[in-house]
Amino acid sequence: MRPSGRDLSEMRPVSIETDFTKHAEGSCLIKVGDTHVICTATIEDRVPPFIKGSGLGWVTAEYGMLPRSTTSRMRREASAGKQGGRTVEIQRLIGRSLRAGVDRVAMGERQISIDCDVIQADGGTRCASITGGWVALRLAVNKLMKAGDIVSDPLVDPVAAVSCGIYAGQPVLDLDYPEDSEAGVDGNFIMTGSKQLIEVQMSAEGATYSRDQMNQLMDLAEKGVGELVEIQKAACA
Amino acid sequence: MRPSGRDLSEMRPVSIETDFTKHAEGSCLIKVGDTHVICTATIEDRVPPFIKGSGLGWVTAEYGMLPRSTTSRMRREASAGKQGGRTVEIQRLIGRSLRAGVDRVAMGERQISIDCDVIQADGGTRCASITGGWVALRLAVNKLMKAGDIVSDPLVDPVAAVSCGIYAGQPVLDLDYPEDSEAGVDGNFIMTGSKQLIEVQMSAEGATYSRDQMNQLMDLAEKGVGELVEIQKAACA
Amino acid sequence: MRPSGRDLSEMRPVSIETDFTKHAEGSCLIKVGDTHVICTATIEDRVPPFIKGSGLGWVTAEYGMLPRSTTSRMRREASAGKQGGRTVEIQRLIGRSLRAGVDRVAMGERQISIDCDVIQADGGTRCASITGGWVALRLAVNKLMKAGDIVSDPLVDPVAAVSCGIYAGQPVLDLDYPEDSEAGVDGNFIMTGSKQLIEVQMSAEGATYSRDQMNQLMDLAEKGVGELVEIQKAACA
Amino acid sequence: MRPSGRDLSEMRPVSIETDFTKHAEGSCLIKVGDTHVICTATIEDRVPPFIKGSGLGWVTAEYGMLPRSTTSRMRREASAGKQGGRTVEIQRLIGRSLRAGVDRVAMGERQISIDCDVIQADGGTRCASITGGWVALRLAVNKLMKAGDIVSDPLVDPVAAVSCGIYAGQPVLDLDYPEDSEAGVDGNFIMTGSKQLIEVQMSAEGATYSRDQMNQLMDLAEKGVGELVEIQKAACA
Amino acid sequence: MRPSGRDLSEMRPVSIETDFTKHAEGSCLIKVGDTHVICTATIEDRVPPFIKGSGLGWVTAEYGMLPRSTTSRMRREASAGKQGGRTVEIQRLIGRSLRAGVDRVAMGERQISIDCDVIQADGGTRCASITGGWVALRLAVNKLMKAGDIVSDPLVDPVAAVSCGIYAGQPVLDLDYPEDSEAGVDGNFIMTGSKQLIEVQMSAEGATYSRDQMNQLMDLAEKGVGELVEIQKAACA
Amino acid sequence: MRPSGRDLSEMRPVSIETDFTKHAEGSCLIKVGDTHVICTATIEDRVPPFIKGSGLGWVTAEYGMLPRSTTSRMRREASAGKQGGRTVEIQRLIGRSLRAGVDRVAMGERQISIDCDVIQADGGTRCASITGGWVALRLAVNKLMKAGDIVSDPLVDPVAAVSCGIYAGQPVLDLDYPEDSEAGVDGNFIMTGSKQLIEVQMSAEGATYSRDQMNQLMDLAEKGVGELVEIQKAACA
Repeated sequence: MRPSGRDLSEMRPVSIETDFTKHAEGSCLIKVGDTHVICTATIEDRVPPFIKGSGLGWVTAEYGMLPRSTTSRMRREASAGKQGGRTVEIQRLIGRSLRAGVDRVAMGERQISIDCDVIQADGGTRCASITGGWVALRLAVNKLMKAGDIVSDPLVDPVAAVSCGIYAGQPVLDLDYPEDSEAGVDGNFIMTGSKQLIEVQMSAEGATYSRDQMNQLMDLAEKGVGELVEIQKAACA
Repeated sequence: MRPSGRDLSEMRPVSIETDFTKHAEGSCLIKVGDTHVICTATIEDRVPPFIKGSGLGWVTAEYGMLPRSTTSRMRREASAGKQGGRTVEIQRLIGRSLRAGVDRVAMGERQISIDCDVIQADGGTRCASITGGWVALRLAVNKLMKAGDIVSDPLVDPVAAVSCGIYAGQPVLDLDYPEDSEAGVDGNFIMTGSKQLIEVQMSAEGATYSRDQMNQLMDLAEKGVGELVEIQKAACA
Repeated sequence: MRPSGRDLSEMRPVSIETDFTKHAEGSCLIKVGDTHVICTATIEDRVPPFIKGSGLGWVTAEYGMLPRSTTSRMRREASAGKQGGRTVEIQRLIGRSLRAGVDRVAMGERQISIDCDVIQADGGTRCASITGGWVALRLAVNKLMKAGDIVSDPLVDPVAAVSCGIYAGQPVLDLDYPEDSEAGVDGNFIMTGSKQLIEVQMSAEGATYSRDQMNQLMDLAEKGVGELVEIQKAACA
Repeated sequence: MRPSGRDLSEMRPVSIETDFTKHAEGSCLIKVGDTHVICTATIEDRVPPFIKGSGLGWVTAEYGMLPRSTTSRMRREASAGKQGGRTVEIQRLIGRSLRAGVDRVAMGERQISIDCDVIQADGGTRCASITGGWVALRLAVNKLMKAGDIVSDPLVDPVAAVSCGIYAGQPVLDLDYPEDSEAGVDGNFIMTGSKQLIEVQMSAEGATYSRDQMNQLMDLAEKGVGELVEIQKAACA
Repeated sequence: MRPSGRDLSEMRPVSIETDFTKHAEGSCLIKVGDTHVICTATIEDRVPPFIKGSGLGWVTAEYGMLPRSTTSRMRREASAGKQGGRTVEIQRLIGRSLRAGVDRVAMGERQISIDCDVIQADGGTRCASITGGWVALRLAVNKLMKAGDIVSDPLVDPVAAVSCGIYAGQPVLDLDYPEDSEAGVDGNFIMTGSKQLIEVQMSAEGATYSRDQMNQLMDLAEKGVGELVEIQKAACA
Repeated sequence: MRPSGRDLSEMRPVSIETDFTKHAEGSCLIKVGDTHVICTATIEDRVPPFIKGSGLGWVTAEYGMLPRSTTSRMRREASAGKQGGRTVEIQRLIGRSLRAGVDRVAMGERQISIDCDVIQADGGTRCASITGGWVALRLAVNKLMKAGDIVSDPLVDPVAAVSCGIYAGQPVLDLDYPEDSEAGVDGNFIMTGSKQLIEVQMSAEGATYSRDQMNQLMDLAEKGVGELVEIQKAACA
């Protein structure tokens, strides 16, 4: 019944190739089906003004799509002169989600910037960015710990994200683009490895949903995040 | 225990003054405690390019804050030369939420633009904007129906929004600014009058939450939206 | 003969509601007929670079219109990405006019920013902004004097503004929008309570005027400013 | 008593060299003392949307300063990414002033754009721009009349501009930069050859002025404009 | 003597992986040593206004670098709000170079947009972009020819680019980043498969060079382009 | 055979009027045929951040065109809100070219900014800007040397630029606009007085060229630069 032939609760194949680029302190190429995202982590000594002197660390994120990562070419945001509303919304979500999984005291007063650049899109780019972004962050923190710059691990529990939605009347896990463009209700669930919630964003476009349906989607999300966390762990091992 | 002395499940006093400005096709001043927002609805014949010729209507929204609506002066976005990420995120949420409550076929091929301008802020401005924005939309649609431009009512069920969060370890309804700035977990719940969900946005900043806690917040949200819908109905009567 | 039925030298009803918003150091809602403007004053310790260390104070102003303050919706300037020429011109006028009425030595090295936001427009918004802006400034200075931060009153004489023009061949006081859009000649007169001139801006669009006509308009302006200053004094009492 | 040794009512030497650039339909280099401005007129068939189909003409203007036209280098506005408030204010004034002297019916539905670029500044650049801009306009209209595109002359009366101000307590004509930077009160007077007023902009910065003083400045302005109009006529003969 | 141990006339290893992304009409990942660029070609029916109706085709290009493609993180241009001067210069060069190798009549009135996005940089990104961009273009044209939309091949001769420079006093081929940042003289040579020149850009920063030296660099460039063209042909076979 | 009747190797008449504007530390008006450019040099104490404390000097350049310097009016870049790609490319070239002829140690840690503003264009504006820009730079450095701020002359050899191209199948020197708009191959050659090369930029648009042709163009360029350098020397004497 799903265009891809997947079961309702079946994720697409997921792979994470670490150290994908040589300059970044942490990096990976994450593939969730045909959605491919390069995630890099940059360690910086400066922090935003509002936490200067606090001793706390900061994690921030930026997101972009290559113009032809999509079926038809999108205008390049650098050339358009500004980041669109969707981009801004997504990169704020990535930053907030990753920060929630960080012990900012243990991290020390430094900033890690996560860049997520989609080179091929097929639905679920923001979730792939969070899941891959956490891996880049993990690798950069490993480097800081190995160098003795950080003593106590600030990443106690992995952070991963998956989308769920109601497609053709059925709750499904990990929507691809054909499903995403049809689903009236869909959401992104960001959780930790121990299934604590970080962010839930359930939207409807031209539809509504019941609390029952929401609970079913949450069940699917827990399953998906569980699988993603295993893949993250294997990649960072 | 709450700074305002309110019960955990008690909303701030809410009032809606309709026809607050004389030019708009629909307008109101909504006050949720010390949060005051002017909402106006503008009917336009043009629709966005992607639905031209479809016969469907469109609802969109813009959001702004007066520079001194806040405790310290914010930079005017028009002067800064762009809308900040938070603004963009909020106005996309308002538009999406209101659209979910509209029968776009019944609306006919026209656009209604909702402007939400915060003249005084004390937490919960996006929720007040959605609740007040729906009233402005309702009044504008009433005008179209009275004129015979719309025959079948496209607003079958009211849309309202409320924030909930975990403050000092307790789930509370309708956070004001002192609570909001302390809460590690909070979210916005947009629902219809019949308690169908439209959007759930639960975020954590430096914290996580369990599914149990989420369910408690949803219970509070249902109570709050129920009260808001009654006030909307009274205002539009 | 005037659309509103007013006499040639009759102003619209004017009211000033002080302390309209709770966060600003000074604020009011000024209504000149159907023109409604929220004016706030913000006290800041920093001054512009060119007077740093001079011991002198500075007063500056910003101006905006809510998108639907007008009969048809205007594009939101924050969304357009810049302030239009008219906005820039007006806010420079407001700042310059208010500064002319301030003893900048007595004020001390601090800045007061006046924000004038038009929530409903019916002609004369820049004059209403100056008149209301002075009230917000007055209230903020009162606060500084009460706190002992300023010893000698820097606001020796009120500043108010009124528009006059030639409508249907006749000099008239305080043009509303229907008159303003017809008048080929009109101007703004900013004066002090003792009738000293601060700024005169008489423009013609597709017309010219004689020195005699200019003198008649000045007479009207003196009358109007006299009335406004009384209302300012009453509001601040 | 004036830094330049001029009498109180004495203008700087003024010269106008027509056809200064070869591409424009009308052009001149105007020198008012050490203030030098290149003015060009461009005839275009299109008009702004709001007069399309009206049969009326339009005159508009843009203004700029070369970065090193001033004593210290100013930032190039094209590089800063926007025109400053002062620039916007000036170019709106130039356009409005020139339009007031044009019979827009006789002009026919076309636009003439006046560009005023200051190559050396020593006070009074906006007045020189208007005076020189009118010459460029005159030459462009001559071309249209010679070609038979315009039958009845739309420029019935020249338009010229001069600044006056109170310097060291005395009303003076045509302020140069040393005077301008000292004067607390100064203004720009735009008039026709027959001494009808088009625009009066009298400002005070940190000062006020009486109606008597204003009248004295107007007398000086009438003298100055009279002289400028003779020079315009000689240049266009 | 070269940091990499290469001979003076030795290129880095070059590989081209075609069909790197699934949505574009043509795409490749080109690796020139540690410089990695994704090149995509998008076929569009519209052409720029200045050739509308001419029957001629157009090739244009855009260029970008991922923020962490470099040793230290660069600011994202979309976030900075504009493309920097270097970016603009490079993308104009890519477009001009590729157009020079296209028979625009044979191409027909359509546009092909080449996007070159650097995912890892180690010197020579603009040359790699041109060489890889031509491959993407070739693949897209193949698709048009196979579909019968183009009959006569508009790409008669491949286009490739290589940099040369004077490093430590010696002319060297294909500078990597350590060489590039030291070389006072370097240039980019864009040629066709038959060694016709398309563009030569030889710059000096704080140095000059003789005509003899220029000739030596041209000899190296011919060698390098010859090798690149073979790799292009193999990749497209 | 050339539209102007010139010989293939004949330059247009060139004149340089020094001290064209009174405020700049160095300035000239250069006329190369009908191409007229105002060049000014501004001495500043600050240097760009990346050379702070190095003791080295910096030369930078900005370029602009008056809107009606061209046959049809171009949009003013300050009003468009950004410098176009061509402008950016040209001003980077001017800065780089002039820097190559400067002994930055002898110059001392200061910046000289060259502004090149085209007031009339007829082809070759970037070359005229470099040639005239060097004169402005020379005059500014003279001032610093006379004042004793610089001891050893940092401008050992003049820098000048000329364009050459293939017009109607023939190599020609110093293209004017009618030639430039027809030529498929043309380039800019920047050299020193002693014929050392600084920058060669040979482009083809819809054409290619052989190495033989390139050599012929280089011969022409050497002749042209030789003549320009004599005119520069005479102007600065």
